[in-house]
Amino acid sequence: MLTHFPERGELQPEEILRLERDRVVLLDQRRLPGAVEYLECRSAAEVAGAIRTLAVRGAPAIGIAAAYGYALAAANGDDLEDAAATLLASRPTAVNLAWAIGEMRAAEGDPAERARAIHREEVERCRQMAEHAARLLEPGTCALTHCNTGGLATGGVGTAVGALSAAWQLGILEHVLVDETRPLLQGSRLTAWELERAGIPHTVIADAAAGAMMATGEVSAVLTGADRVAANGDTANKIGTYALAVLAAHHGIPFYVVAPSSTVDLGTATGAGIPIEEREGAEVTDRFPARNPAFDVTPGALVSAIVTERGVHRPPYGESLAYLDPSVLEASR
Amino acid sequence: MLTHFPERGELQPEEILRLERDRVVLLDQRRLPGAVEYLECRSAAEVAGAIRTLAVRGAPAIGIAAAYGYALAAANGDDLEDAAATLLASRPTAVNLAWAIGEMRAAEGDPAERARAIHREEVERCRQMAEHAARLLEPGTCALTHCNTGGLATGGVGTAVGALSAAWQLGILEHVLVDETRPLLQGSRLTAWELERAGIPHTVIADAAAGAMMATGEVSAVLTGADRVAANGDTANKIGTYALAVLAAHHGIPFYVVAPSSTVDLGTATGAGIPIEEREGAEVTDRFPARNPAFDVTPGALVSAIVTERGVHRPPYGESLAYLDPSVLEASR
Repeated sequence: MLTHFPERGELQPEEILRLERDRVVLLDQRRLPGAVEYLECRSAAEVAGAIRTLAVRGAPAIGIAAAYGYALAAANGDDLEDAAATLLASRPTAVNLAWAIGEMRAAEGDPAERARAIHREEVERCRQMAEHAARLLEPGTCALTHCNTGGLATGGVGTAVGALSAAWQLGILEHVLVDETRPLLQGSRLTAWELERAGIPHTVIADAAAGAMMATGEVSAVLTGADRVAANGDTANKIGTYALAVLAAHHGIPFYVVAPSSTVDLGTATGAGIPIEEREGAEVTDRFPARNPAFDVTPGALVSAIVTERGVHRPPYGESLAYLDPSVLEASR
Repeated sequence: MLTHFPERGELQPEEILRLERDRVVLLDQRRLPGAVEYLECRSAAEVAGAIRTLAVRGAPAIGIAAAYGYALAAANGDDLEDAAATLLASRPTAVNLAWAIGEMRAAEGDPAERARAIHREEVERCRQMAEHAARLLEPGTCALTHCNTGGLATGGVGTAVGALSAAWQLGILEHVLVDETRPLLQGSRLTAWELERAGIPHTVIADAAAGAMMATGEVSAVLTGADRVAANGDTANKIGTYALAVLAAHHGIPFYVVAPSSTVDLGTATGAGIPIEEREGAEVTDRFPARNPAFDVTPGALVSAIVTERGVHRPPYGESLAYLDPSVLEASR
């Protein structure tokens, strides 16, 4: 266990989640920002439980957690097919889960090493994405972001928040408006906490205030992450992202999706093929009937650019995302 | 005090707020739905405090409460200019406050009688608005609404919720999607409670889910109230209304504003002239910097129709709302 948790600075990858000899150690995101506590998982089933209950969340981070869970099953001598199925069933929307399990199954050699390499690769992808995406922003940018896409969500510097951190370091970011992101408040609990640690000026707003902020000219760009990007650029992300994209288009504000290639699912043709998780209505209200779709789908037509570690993908996404296909990469060499 | 508070049926005007000999009795909206409790105010200053702290809220209801507060000051022999100033300063956006105080100042005879008449007139306006607005809806309507616009907000059957109740009684309403309405949850605390009492099928959603519900075809009309309507149809209403109007326009869904003439401010030319209340950021989060505009302005161009007790006003609103001006009414006779 870490004995000292620094109050300032960017989260380090091993502060977010890591694999030890006989356990996966996760910073428990349900307790933040009130408490910095770690959850220890000693089996793939416990990791799946941590993913299901959102102790760890964010598409890239749950991919890494699943890889660690799979490696733990291997170390424990558990049935790997069972472990894979349990991990895959923990949440439906983020494709990173399936991607990471696929990587682990295909790997030769020490599963623990491969899992740690997946984490290192995501860290590196974050760094590259952040550089590419920051270059899209103008000096003096006031960015609006939704949900949490920082270190907690990725195990690295983040996707959209990583880009904002890079822009802050370049001196071109002025301020971040943080959607609180109901019902689970990933914005006001997690993103604000990360921005505070990083010393980046930020203001939390109710999700419903985002449109008014755009109308008054206070938003120069919207940046979000993604849970799954279909081959045509349709993007599943935290509920409310679609409304932001419509509002951004209405106001002529650029809307950028920042996501690693592990979140791009070229096997899913359009957003219609992305399963959308419906969570318990009680997360919204336990007093009256409620519905709680956790994600929505933003059509590629509303997305100004998708930024992966490979660079900035522009419409038409059917072409610009196809370069992420390993066989296309191979052919183009 | 009421000794029995019925659990079912529409709220009766005197259950919501009323003037007694030496006090104004208000159903305390801060405690709902957990507790049905009344707040007793024995001075205009106490009524102003109840308005400021949202024990009573909703543009028509705070107009009525202000009239009752003014009548109480008269009964107490207090300085009426002081009382008027205190009541007027309690909240800035809803014009009903200024309208009701103006009515009280101009009235001759017993102030208590005039205040009770203002309440009765609002009840009647609600009934008429509800009839007009319900006729705009198609059979099988699934309506989306925001904030609370029922009996609690109006002292009568409500504005948008009044229209939905009328449509339900006509058999043309199927279901209501209720925006929870952060940060103070007027939707999931108050509107859901009123719809439950009235036996109208309803589902609470996070505000950020409204766009996705429109995209999946689950919304046939959006109905909201208003806190102030400018002469050109620009409408100030609970934060998030503007985003709903943009989303409704994007999806070709009609967006209706239901508000009595006491909410229409022909003395304010456009929405730019409407003061927008900024409430404490701590209502959003008390842990990080936050902004909390309580209202936003929806341009008339995004409003399909404005329904008052006089009927259905269509664009151009500069013309169709002008008929609410008493001098125009006089001239047209």
